[in-house]
Amino acid sequence: MDNQNHTKTDGWVHYVSMSPPSLTNNTADVDRLTTQLKQQLNARFIDMDRSVMVLLPEVLRKSNFNVRCVLFGDNHCYHLIDVQPSNDCLPVYGLAIDLGTTRVVFRLLDLSNHNTIAETTIDNPQGKIAPDVLARIHFTDQPGGLEHLQQLVIDAINQQVQHICFKHCIDIKQILCMSIAGNTCMTHLFLGFPPQAIIREPYIPVINRQMLFPVESLGIEINPQARLFVFPNIGSYFGGDLISGILALNMHHQDEISIMVDVGTNAEVVLGNKDWMIACAGAAGPALESGVSRIGMTAGPGAIERIELENHSMRWHTIDNKKPVGICGSGFIDLAAVLFQAGMLDIRGKFVPNQCKDRLFNINDIIHFLVVPKEKSATSENLTISQVDIDSLIRSKAAMYTILTTIAQSVGIRLTDISVFYVAGTFGAYIDPSSAITIGMIPDLPLERYQSVGNTSLEGASRVLLSRKDSESVSDIQKHITYMELNVNQEFMNRFSAAKFIPHTDTTLFPSVKVPSI
Amino acid sequence: MDNQNHTKTDGWVHYVSMSPPSLTNNTADVDRLTTQLKQQLNARFIDMDRSVMVLLPEVLRKSNFNVRCVLFGDNHCYHLIDVQPSNDCLPVYGLAIDLGTTRVVFRLLDLSNHNTIAETTIDNPQGKIAPDVLARIHFTDQPGGLEHLQQLVIDAINQQVQHICFKHCIDIKQILCMSIAGNTCMTHLFLGFPPQAIIREPYIPVINRQMLFPVESLGIEINPQARLFVFPNIGSYFGGDLISGILALNMHHQDEISIMVDVGTNAEVVLGNKDWMIACAGAAGPALESGVSRIGMTAGPGAIERIELENHSMRWHTIDNKKPVGICGSGFIDLAAVLFQAGMLDIRGKFVPNQCKDRLFNINDIIHFLVVPKEKSATSENLTISQVDIDSLIRSKAAMYTILTTIAQSVGIRLTDISVFYVAGTFGAYIDPSSAITIGMIPDLPLERYQSVGNTSLEGASRVLLSRKDSESVSDIQKHITYMELNVNQEFMNRFSAAKFIPHTDTTLFPSVKVPSI
Repeated sequence: MDNQNHTKTDGWVHYVSMSPPSLTNNTADVDRLTTQLKQQLNARFIDMDRSVMVLLPEVLRKSNFNVRCVLFGDNHCYHLIDVQPSNDCLPVYGLAIDLGTTRVVFRLLDLSNHNTIAETTIDNPQGKIAPDVLARIHFTDQPGGLEHLQQLVIDAINQQVQHICFKHCIDIKQILCMSIAGNTCMTHLFLGFPPQAIIREPYIPVINRQMLFPVESLGIEINPQARLFVFPNIGSYFGGDLISGILALNMHHQDEISIMVDVGTNAEVVLGNKDWMIACAGAAGPALESGVSRIGMTAGPGAIERIELENHSMRWHTIDNKKPVGICGSGFIDLAAVLFQAGMLDIRGKFVPNQCKDRLFNINDIIHFLVVPKEKSATSENLTISQVDIDSLIRSKAAMYTILTTIAQSVGIRLTDISVFYVAGTFGAYIDPSSAITIGMIPDLPLERYQSVGNTSLEGASRVLLSRKDSESVSDIQKHITYMELNVNQEFMNRFSAAKFIPHTDTTLFPSVKVPSI
Repeated sequence: MDNQNHTKTDGWVHYVSMSPPSLTNNTADVDRLTTQLKQQLNARFIDMDRSVMVLLPEVLRKSNFNVRCVLFGDNHCYHLIDVQPSNDCLPVYGLAIDLGTTRVVFRLLDLSNHNTIAETTIDNPQGKIAPDVLARIHFTDQPGGLEHLQQLVIDAINQQVQHICFKHCIDIKQILCMSIAGNTCMTHLFLGFPPQAIIREPYIPVINRQMLFPVESLGIEINPQARLFVFPNIGSYFGGDLISGILALNMHHQDEISIMVDVGTNAEVVLGNKDWMIACAGAAGPALESGVSRIGMTAGPGAIERIELENHSMRWHTIDNKKPVGICGSGFIDLAAVLFQAGMLDIRGKFVPNQCKDRLFNINDIIHFLVVPKEKSATSENLTISQVDIDSLIRSKAAMYTILTTIAQSVGIRLTDISVFYVAGTFGAYIDPSSAITIGMIPDLPLERYQSVGNTSLEGASRVLLSRKDSESVSDIQKHITYMELNVNQEFMNRFSAAKFIPHTDTTLFPSVKVPSI
């Protein structure tokens, strides 16, 4: 009974009791069930596969017309995927996937009680072929390249589903629905859509609107009647993972203005509330991704993720408390903030020799700053940061701040009008907002307005499996968003130049940041 | 250009010209095409398979965004099945099927110019297993019986499609849509739906509403993206073939009241106009089907289909002018009319010995009437009709007339208010209305109001392939019809008794019929 009460509301599992047919009430089986369901769910249209219809007469009569229905769909149509006698039915599951360029995250959900059964992560197997989006798209120029990349992901999904189901003693046929959220390119590769036009002017995806496919058409091995919900894109550089994130954060329902920022090589930003929403994406430069310098790395064991200054000596903290092997984006931002506040970096982001003293030395005519001496590093080599690395970070942070200023100005608000600042993704999980404010990367808001949000893409994908309302709002969110092309004009360049100082040429924008007097 | 003009209107083939994408118009490919199509067709929703999306980028760019689209669907959704460059595209075909209990009729249509390419007929292969509806339903009680019957029809369809395509040098993949109209039982067997509940009280079909399936889900081998339109039923005894007939005759759009009657073992009747429509079905007895008597047969070579009286001698006409082997329904009605007008049959339908003279003789104590002496028959035996056969015909004609009276009275009209009387099916093709009026089987309307209509089921199925409006009106027709259960109560029985006379106890109902004074 608990289940029945729970599922009466907004989910996809519904219990239906019909009057058995009689001479005066001789509606056909399918029509009887769908009429009742449409009424119960206030649905416009309920569709089902022939294979479900075939079994219906027996199930209805065996259950004396009391059945449990599992549906799935979007605002266009609900599909009736499974019908079983109410008093004798198997558990039902849904699978949410965050399809990242680097990693793929799976969450298996019990659709009756909304519990998470399993959550696992694998590397995106396409990474072995080509590490980043651009390289993967180029790979599809080869004959069979697209099909190969697609098959890699689909095989990996099937394997992972089998693995999860085996571990939890679940029949894969009990997984009745699935949702997937990824960036525009990952979505294209997964669906086998040619991605070339995404990266060539005028940057055209095959499709932006959301899709609902029979899983069989993709070779995904769960229940053959299951449907797959694919999150829509806004465009080539603003994908379904972000739409999913907006859903997860409920930004589209809030009165207050919030912003979500996801930073990688690109910075993707969406700003708005229930009444309006504007999005943009821009190159933030490579400083915040791996490969920034010899010691730059993505967040992983041994990465310096946090740096503090204590009595003129640096204290670092590494992931998993391993000996340091490098420095990741959040550690790098901390480092710059710390150096700036110690007067070792000036407002132009240049090392100040008489403050840095013997920590500075030349390698191939480029000034380097010693972060970790070789005795303390895992590699037995000095871990250093060069002026070139710092310059790159300054450009990245200036780009980030300029993008934020530009999007806010485009809708006539000040950055300080933002009530909640969501920092998404891996970057958001590690970054220290106070350091990012110190270097003028993000606006000088009270720290409590910053929220590091986890995997919002996975969270949004889960929501769609658990809530009809959420599933239906996805296309509304997509339509609701105005995508702004970042016009790199003179005004943008002026803002960018001003933001290339620490924290900014206009220090009144960063009242909380103490600029040291050197 | 001719084609383009033709298809601009109401069909499923449409030419679409889009502006190519640019930086200021960067809509995705699928969205660009569907937005334009929706506008052009005033469609609510356009769906397509992933396999169509995959090919779209190349087709759009190769054609400079000028494409020919083939769609198919109903009022709920249009499916985009095929997209090809406008200036370089293959012909496209649709297949309409009338799925009869005895025969299956195929019509292949060119969707661009609406020409009929081929029309062929085969025996329903289920007939070898069980001749009639009832026997086939009983056969499905056996394990695997339903699947076997279903497979027989699907194999026969696939074979026939291959045969037609081979003959006309057509690639089966160029058949992009298909429609099928059959009675409720045939539709169930074709779709693999358990038909048992159709014939058991309270007579419940699996589904009544119309369906649109991917042909692949049924194993039908035409274009894999093709969709199959299945006509809806009204109930167990009023099937999709009749809905299709109403569509073909346009009854649902007419101001004037018309009636369509299809007679076999059951008489199926629908009466109405654009504002209202009422239907019923009732047992008409076996007299008008094969097996009525030793010489009763369905219309075929050698069947006496027409009988006239000339100078007291009977003249008959057989199908294909073969020597007579038997008498079919229409010939039997002519015979009864002729005998009645010659005074050889009285108003009770009994042979009048002193009028029939030596044409009457006893076989096993039953009076027989000699129709064709053995010298003239193909079988070298006398072809006779017995009093039992005539009694059976009288019951059938009385049932028919009672059903017509009952349905007319239920909506408060007189039979003479009917402007057009459509006689459908094989029966309609042969029957002579004046004979049927003479024996009081059908109302005494001016002969020009009677129209023999051919295979309206096939015609309606074709309409759906050629016209979006027609496809969309099918569900409206279905909802528009009120099905009346024929309540066999005392009033019905009184009417039936009165109709068991020739032409009727109330001869004022048949002013044109001269009752001979014997």
